[in-house]
Amino acid sequence: MQNPGEAIPTYSDVPVGIEATGSRSEFDSLGSVDVPADRYWGAQTQRSLLHFSIGNDRMPIEVYRAYGLVKKACALVNERAGRLADWRSKVIVQAADEAIAGKLDDEFPLFVWQTGSGTQSNMNVNEVLSNRAIQLVGGELGSQRPVGPNDHVNMGQSSNDTFPTAMHIAAVTELDDRLIPRVQDLHDEIAAKAAQWADVVKIGRTHLEDAVPLTVGQEWSGYSAQLTACVAELRHARAGLLELAVGGTAVGTGLNAPAGFSLDVAAELARLTGAAYVTAPNKFAALGSLDPMVRAHAALRGLAVALMKIANDMRWLASGPRCGFGELLLPANEPGSSIMPGKVNPTQCEALVMIAIQVIGNDTAVALAGSQGNFELNAMRPVIVNNFLHSARILGDGCGKFLEFSVRGTTLNTDRITNYVSESLMLVTALSPVIGYQNAAHIAEDALAKGTTLRDAAVSSGHVTAEQFDSVVDPRGMVGNGAGGA
Amino acid sequence: MQNPGEAIPTYSDVPVGIEATGSRSEFDSLGSVDVPADRYWGAQTQRSLLHFSIGNDRMPIEVYRAYGLVKKACALVNERAGRLADWRSKVIVQAADEAIAGKLDDEFPLFVWQTGSGTQSNMNVNEVLSNRAIQLVGGELGSQRPVGPNDHVNMGQSSNDTFPTAMHIAAVTELDDRLIPRVQDLHDEIAAKAAQWADVVKIGRTHLEDAVPLTVGQEWSGYSAQLTACVAELRHARAGLLELAVGGTAVGTGLNAPAGFSLDVAAELARLTGAAYVTAPNKFAALGSLDPMVRAHAALRGLAVALMKIANDMRWLASGPRCGFGELLLPANEPGSSIMPGKVNPTQCEALVMIAIQVIGNDTAVALAGSQGNFELNAMRPVIVNNFLHSARILGDGCGKFLEFSVRGTTLNTDRITNYVSESLMLVTALSPVIGYQNAAHIAEDALAKGTTLRDAAVSSGHVTAEQFDSVVDPRGMVGNGAGGA
Amino acid sequence: MQNPGEAIPTYSDVPVGIEATGSRSEFDSLGSVDVPADRYWGAQTQRSLLHFSIGNDRMPIEVYRAYGLVKKACALVNERAGRLADWRSKVIVQAADEAIAGKLDDEFPLFVWQTGSGTQSNMNVNEVLSNRAIQLVGGELGSQRPVGPNDHVNMGQSSNDTFPTAMHIAAVTELDDRLIPRVQDLHDEIAAKAAQWADVVKIGRTHLEDAVPLTVGQEWSGYSAQLTACVAELRHARAGLLELAVGGTAVGTGLNAPAGFSLDVAAELARLTGAAYVTAPNKFAALGSLDPMVRAHAALRGLAVALMKIANDMRWLASGPRCGFGELLLPANEPGSSIMPGKVNPTQCEALVMIAIQVIGNDTAVALAGSQGNFELNAMRPVIVNNFLHSARILGDGCGKFLEFSVRGTTLNTDRITNYVSESLMLVTALSPVIGYQNAAHIAEDALAKGTTLRDAAVSSGHVTAEQFDSVVDPRGMVGNGAGGA
Amino acid sequence: MQNPGEAIPTYSDVPVGIEATGSRSEFDSLGSVDVPADRYWGAQTQRSLLHFSIGNDRMPIEVYRAYGLVKKACALVNERAGRLADWRSKVIVQAADEAIAGKLDDEFPLFVWQTGSGTQSNMNVNEVLSNRAIQLVGGELGSQRPVGPNDHVNMGQSSNDTFPTAMHIAAVTELDDRLIPRVQDLHDEIAAKAAQWADVVKIGRTHLEDAVPLTVGQEWSGYSAQLTACVAELRHARAGLLELAVGGTAVGTGLNAPAGFSLDVAAELARLTGAAYVTAPNKFAALGSLDPMVRAHAALRGLAVALMKIANDMRWLASGPRCGFGELLLPANEPGSSIMPGKVNPTQCEALVMIAIQVIGNDTAVALAGSQGNFELNAMRPVIVNNFLHSARILGDGCGKFLEFSVRGTTLNTDRITNYVSESLMLVTALSPVIGYQNAAHIAEDALAKGTTLRDAAVSSGHVTAEQFDSVVDPRGMVGNGAGGA
Repeated sequence: MQNPGEAIPTYSDVPVGIEATGSRSEFDSLGSVDVPADRYWGAQTQRSLLHFSIGNDRMPIEVYRAYGLVKKACALVNERAGRLADWRSKVIVQAADEAIAGKLDDEFPLFVWQTGSGTQSNMNVNEVLSNRAIQLVGGELGSQRPVGPNDHVNMGQSSNDTFPTAMHIAAVTELDDRLIPRVQDLHDEIAAKAAQWADVVKIGRTHLEDAVPLTVGQEWSGYSAQLTACVAELRHARAGLLELAVGGTAVGTGLNAPAGFSLDVAAELARLTGAAYVTAPNKFAALGSLDPMVRAHAALRGLAVALMKIANDMRWLASGPRCGFGELLLPANEPGSSIMPGKVNPTQCEALVMIAIQVIGNDTAVALAGSQGNFELNAMRPVIVNNFLHSARILGDGCGKFLEFSVRGTTLNTDRITNYVSESLMLVTALSPVIGYQNAAHIAEDALAKGTTLRDAAVSSGHVTAEQFDSVVDPRGMVGNGAGGA
Repeated sequence: MQNPGEAIPTYSDVPVGIEATGSRSEFDSLGSVDVPADRYWGAQTQRSLLHFSIGNDRMPIEVYRAYGLVKKACALVNERAGRLADWRSKVIVQAADEAIAGKLDDEFPLFVWQTGSGTQSNMNVNEVLSNRAIQLVGGELGSQRPVGPNDHVNMGQSSNDTFPTAMHIAAVTELDDRLIPRVQDLHDEIAAKAAQWADVVKIGRTHLEDAVPLTVGQEWSGYSAQLTACVAELRHARAGLLELAVGGTAVGTGLNAPAGFSLDVAAELARLTGAAYVTAPNKFAALGSLDPMVRAHAALRGLAVALMKIANDMRWLASGPRCGFGELLLPANEPGSSIMPGKVNPTQCEALVMIAIQVIGNDTAVALAGSQGNFELNAMRPVIVNNFLHSARILGDGCGKFLEFSVRGTTLNTDRITNYVSESLMLVTALSPVIGYQNAAHIAEDALAKGTTLRDAAVSSGHVTAEQFDSVVDPRGMVGNGAGGA
Repeated sequence: MQNPGEAIPTYSDVPVGIEATGSRSEFDSLGSVDVPADRYWGAQTQRSLLHFSIGNDRMPIEVYRAYGLVKKACALVNERAGRLADWRSKVIVQAADEAIAGKLDDEFPLFVWQTGSGTQSNMNVNEVLSNRAIQLVGGELGSQRPVGPNDHVNMGQSSNDTFPTAMHIAAVTELDDRLIPRVQDLHDEIAAKAAQWADVVKIGRTHLEDAVPLTVGQEWSGYSAQLTACVAELRHARAGLLELAVGGTAVGTGLNAPAGFSLDVAAELARLTGAAYVTAPNKFAALGSLDPMVRAHAALRGLAVALMKIANDMRWLASGPRCGFGELLLPANEPGSSIMPGKVNPTQCEALVMIAIQVIGNDTAVALAGSQGNFELNAMRPVIVNNFLHSARILGDGCGKFLEFSVRGTTLNTDRITNYVSESLMLVTALSPVIGYQNAAHIAEDALAKGTTLRDAAVSSGHVTAEQFDSVVDPRGMVGNGAGGA
Repeated sequence: MQNPGEAIPTYSDVPVGIEATGSRSEFDSLGSVDVPADRYWGAQTQRSLLHFSIGNDRMPIEVYRAYGLVKKACALVNERAGRLADWRSKVIVQAADEAIAGKLDDEFPLFVWQTGSGTQSNMNVNEVLSNRAIQLVGGELGSQRPVGPNDHVNMGQSSNDTFPTAMHIAAVTELDDRLIPRVQDLHDEIAAKAAQWADVVKIGRTHLEDAVPLTVGQEWSGYSAQLTACVAELRHARAGLLELAVGGTAVGTGLNAPAGFSLDVAAELARLTGAAYVTAPNKFAALGSLDPMVRAHAALRGLAVALMKIANDMRWLASGPRCGFGELLLPANEPGSSIMPGKVNPTQCEALVMIAIQVIGNDTAVALAGSQGNFELNAMRPVIVNNFLHSARILGDGCGKFLEFSVRGTTLNTDRITNYVSESLMLVTALSPVIGYQNAAHIAEDALAKGTTLRDAAVSSGHVTAEQFDSVVDPRGMVGNGAGGA
């Protein structure tokens, strides 16, 4: 709230950026720290940069943009509740909007490998928004006045409740903006090809071995159905992420947040984003576990499992061109080999398989991290959100490239497909209801041993006439109708 | 159907069991094989026992009991369609009922490590039901007449569609009969304790470090909420398993099954079991992938992750008795040590943690296996169903024992709990909105450095009076109300 | 030692087995428990059976047989040190020998999911050996006199040091007796086939696509080399398991064990087994971690990874018979399909792939369990030893069956192999050093587009004459010599 | 070699960099592509950027620096063999040296998710070195003359053999330059603290429960021993990486490489780096599998498992300050909480635990990828090398920060440590050899129930006198001597 006797400072809409060189002193409860003078961040960010420069993994920028939404919503709710002066709210909101819009991306340099609560990233946001707000009202950077990182930007909040809130928002955003649309696009193209090739009869294969026929369209309808189920599961997982922890503050009790804060901030976030966010019904679970993130990553993993099957099928069916299955012709996007001239390889399929493998590995990390909560906090949050966003991103991009550069341009080698059908011995299965399984088996074995056609072996077996054979063993008649089986 | 001129044999309700010694000759398309004369199984089972005696992992009996349901439903549908003579259907159904009831358990000896389609287990069922049916009509065992394993018991079916059907039914049964009720029971007891201890104020801990207070009931409400979500996710996963592959036959087209077979058998299975089984909308996906099983195991994994957090909390909170946290008193079920007299250990918690770890490992196997389908078949089925039933079983039993022998008898060490609250420095947080974060921080640091109480340090700081301190820093007032946070 | 005034009881070599019905009272520090009168086990085993009947996973019998060795060695060392009367040592050793020989297998019924230290299994052994020893000297079963489970059988020991000792011994035994020999056998057969087929030129495939030629023998030499490295890694892992924890007792200090006990017992175990066991140099690491088991399972996992590649290659190369690669002919061990007559499937390969997948999953469980030690104990031992023995066993048996029923009987489809070589376009690579990569690429592309042979396209390109082509593009000349590349 | 009649161009040592704007035309066998005029890369790199811009994962720069070594070594060997004109070799070597020195880092922009063979990264290197070499002899960029990417830079090589060679070199370099030294440093500090605290008696804990005493130094000696074993295992894994695939070319036969190329290039790489590289004995295994990388990552995983135990112990032992174990005092590097003033958290431990979790997840990805080779190529290389370098890097940096900011400044809370020892009941274990396990157990139980000291309970039991108690129950006497147990 407005402190008694506190002057209202003058607002000035200076653009983002600090014109300064050298360093500036910032402080926190442990003392003073020098930070680069042209940066908005403060003491705790600088300490974290010193203590945690580990590898190349930076906290994903998506987390900070989501955090901008959280800080904005909290400021608006605090203002409405009369806890935060309206001029303070205004500048905090402006700074938060700049974070949301990506204008402050460079101000969030911290590493994934930091405190397990994400506190350092929360303080990074608090510090940056504080200094940016101070700048907007002409204050002294680093003074924490008149807009403090803890007392104002973080008002009614803890890292413990806001970081998982930002995690959920970042995850939902990635699902909505990238992953689900791209999987849907991939599905749509595959479904279109399934329709296009609905009547192309091909040999089926089970155990990698020749089996009874189906149509290419039926085969692709299976891929399409897998992806339909994956999208549904992604939506189900997304629903679990709509429940937000904010309002639980430090341990779930909501200490230092006013009554109704949970509900109000969730509603404000729903209003700001259009996603149906609600407050988590139990804040102790929301802070002490990250179960909804674990479940959501399992949906990513489920997608990876399905994509691996689809991509593998495509590259095997395209193997050759002369010494493999050779049923599909994939686009030649690049020379395949540095040594073998003219080679074309299923590179998009390989990339997608590797992505799937990475996601399965990430999933192990997420599950393990999810299991390691203790008491009122799961302190494994950065590794979880980083893996989630990593997995979702490479799946989304991977599906996009796979669609654009492989699936869309795939065509059929119809000669090869037709020849296989005519050569296969497993069409004998259609005879089974007529002459019995064992007799049919002996016909197939005989044809294989003698290298003859099935028809010759069948007729010479004496169990059927040539006319019977031709009427029963009709590949087109063996493929049924559509996707539902018999 | 009834073959023209075929005599209807005489039915005799002989009890289960073969009075014979030595061996009996059985045959399949590869030739004859000797089997033990007192066993119902045939040539293919015997071959599999020879080729695949690997380790100690037998195909779970639950798969066979589920298979009994599949065979029964198929026979009934085939009979109604006029494809299977009613007397044949009758004896197949009786044999299937005996399998369902567990009377034939000893007849299903095969190993998990066999053909990836589960064909050998399907043939094991076909052979056993065939011979048992033959026995009921006074035929010659091993003759495959007048009830053949392929032509009659397997009529309109393939391993490729029936094995995943049996997998789904076995999984749903395990969820319904054991796992979900036991998790629900555990939830209920935890929720009851959360209610019982709703007003016991304790110190919170984040990052393992002292934090602001909450009540024991709030802490346990978090566990309760985690389990509520797990049960919901198990039900969601179960829904995905209700879609059945039967009717797809060999590659998904339904070859050799009559029109409507998919719908009719699923409806019959729903009628027989009371579970809302339906036919899978796409049989190519249902045979070529095992995505619903992968998703369902992810729900088991999610439960494991939650249980690991809960069991770990309990054992840490019970650590001591004198040199640990010591807030909880777990039942002493057994002497804890072979060398340290009088030691009591959190053994149920440890068992549950180990179970959770196993389930997370099994989940990796299931995901990997799920990704390895090719073309019209995922030939990794036995490893998937074995892991699913293993995970579900040990989770179910583990929850049951954990509830009965640990959670139910857990009590509070209220002296210890109360002392911690009075000693903790993090109650300073309540001062933060009054005197600011930085001033509050210095008070806590001062108290820690000097070894004094927070109250002494606060008053001597000059920022608050003793009266102010007492009115603001009231642990009971800091815990909020209920589970929803602020 | 012999207590002053204690009478030496009379030994009588009664056979294993208790002639009694009903129940017998046994006691431990918590009180009395009824056990079945015909069992040797005591109160703590009975309690564990009540509290931990979870699933079907029993502690592997190999652990108990190894424990027999530990108890025997300790008794002998205690006797020599004058701490254990010779008559006590004699009967404990006899009972231990019976455990080692498997005569007491039925007396060890406990579940894997028990206390994480394995204390209950240690006490199971202590109780059984105690009562068996009491029986041998005519004492009263359950009296713990004159041979007590804690004071005599467990003398100088704790579960904390003896259980990991038994784990290591059981693991080394499994490696020595089963896994390493079977991998070696598999290697030897593959190496023999590599030699046999050293001159059969076939088309190579990279990215699943046609590439330059090699010989079948070279391809198989790669499998052979992979297995050679796996065996070396198994031996390396085995070396890490030779270090034993015994002598650390409860927390690593060796409390209640006499000086030199560590060294003496390890030496005795080496003498008894012939394996070069030594005492672990640091007992705190040996009790607080299970790192050598984690490392050893990684070697199993490495084997699984290699086997998966080999088994996959074999089933893909055998795919067909008419619509796949079709280069290899695997033995037909059983009918492949319940619906498709005459189908032969690569079932041994599938079983081995599933085994590999299980081992990779088990490895996740082992690593996770290995990471969860706390302070002086890793209390995740049962899950680790169970997974290790499970993985090693199914790998060993799986390799055995794969060798016997698949690799040994594999033959070549030389017509197919030869045809592929003559059809492939990638032989163009040999032209590259002569006419440059880009010119060679255009020749291959031209041949593919026009459906001609490579020779025709090359000659019509004008870059080479027919004579040059024939002299350069010689498949036999392109395969180099042996395994080492250029 | 020098082509007959080919002019030797004039060398000019122009600095790295292209002064040009707009685009330049480059070509490959598929045609022409525009590339940015100020970049050295060519058509295939540009194609890859278009087709594979997936996520943010770039092929690690360490791979390219290692590739520089490979290209340099090959050029030198080709020159010596008279295959590559010395002026060509000179400029290729200069360009390679610039890549090795990091001067060309910006020229290697490709993504991890590309072709599974790494061909695009190999071609990226070939193109950049080609154009840089062309620049040095005053040629036209993009002309591939007089130094071609395929014919000269890639002479005698394939991606299939050089990419895994670069993987191995990059991995060995990371182990040598960063990971192993940092683990060793961490070990040394821990060992020093173990020595410093060798005589501080503390209570042991097993199952999280109070146990018999040991010294702080003994506890830390366990950590030290774990790390010693980890370093040994890293060195063992490193040895497996010294075997190089180069010389196998496309499929392992060494086609288009001259005799002796394998040996010569490996020797040259050993000379250039000082690491004892040798040629892999079997090139088919070296191309078709990535088993040595899988094994090497298992060693990283083993380190992660050990570090997780150590970091967890430290944060638990530091828990408090007043309501936890409180034995250790970790440095306060930053304010711990955004809401709880004065809070200090074990952030370095948390970061290290998260790193360990990531490495365990990465390990799953590596194993899975390693299992997915087919025929003459494992086409999952980029995902493997990226995970390896990621894991090694964060482990190395994580150990460094953990050492610098947590372990080094850790001190003991000796009051707390001493109090625990005096309060613990498990000292009763020392009485066990004197009065028997059961009597000792009842004394401990009695003390716990009555809240008295162990001494009081012991004396009042009548089993020992006060004098006996004091002489037997001496904590300092119970901790043995050193690390080896009894």
